[in-house]
Amino acid sequence: MTERTEGIVFRRATEADLPAIVAMLAADSLGVGRESPDDLAPYREAFARVDADPNQHLIVADRDGTAVGTMQLTVIPGLSRRGATRTIVEAVRVHPSERGNGLGTRFMEYAVAESRRLGASLVQLTSDRSRADAHRFYERLGFVPSHMGFKLQLEP
Amino acid sequence: MTERTEGIVFRRATEADLPAIVAMLAADSLGVGRESPDDLAPYREAFARVDADPNQHLIVADRDGTAVGTMQLTVIPGLSRRGATRTIVEAVRVHPSERGNGLGTRFMEYAVAESRRLGASLVQLTSDRSRADAHRFYERLGFVPSHMGFKLQLEP
Repeated sequence: MTERTEGIVFRRATEADLPAIVAMLAADSLGVGRESPDDLAPYREAFARVDADPNQHLIVADRDGTAVGTMQLTVIPGLSRRGATRTIVEAVRVHPSERGNGLGTRFMEYAVAESRRLGASLVQLTSDRSRADAHRFYERLGFVPSHMGFKLQLEP
Repeated sequence: MTERTEGIVFRRATEADLPAIVAMLAADSLGVGRESPDDLAPYREAFARVDADPNQHLIVADRDGTAVGTMQLTVIPGLSRRGATRTIVEAVRVHPSERGNGLGTRFMEYAVAESRRLGASLVQLTSDRSRADAHRFYERLGFVPSHMGFKLQLEP
């Protein structure tokens, strides 16, 4: 633990963390315009669905009671690789005030340790192709950029 | 429906489909060596976990009672994009005898329709960077290759 991340604890998110989490999602360069931090109602509904699902783990990095980082870990049991369970890490965000202090690394190391504890033998994530810094970060942590990630947006 | 895929139905997998599903996983060029089609025990355990999870949908394409295609659809509620629910499609395989007859397209169209029915506004998948044919296939279906997919294998 470096001095600058001392005092940070990782814990399960509660509904009280929603304003801080949504602010981080909305502040992200790719999140601008697709989030609504002034209207938390859709996030409260979504939080209830996430919180009720035993395979969803919404985690925050907490400094003095405030969420300064967030990620969602999903446990996916499956058949391939002799019945391997994998986790998927989505929506990783760190507050700008905490950048460059090693929190991102500690947070991902925590995600990997949690994945092991939850029985996973594989951790997966996708990262927008424009996020070159994030790609170097994940590769330093041992992640292999072996796949292309495809998305299809469904119109309502 | 083309003539050559007539008679195919899509349905939830049952434990009786395991030998056919595992054979398809093992026959895949990237699956050789990491599956054990002669020892179904780990797959039976994994099937029980998948089947018990309401957010996992293991689907087969059935021709005359035999699974000739398989995929796993996972529903992931989340906070980002104003509380959007997404689905992830994993482990898509089609039996070699059914290649080139349009089954792959119909199967993915079914996955997209199921995703809508399950409340998703986004469908995601990753595909090994070496599978150029698969990438063209997903792009024809409207999927956008916007992301890099990273994996970290955890040693036992």
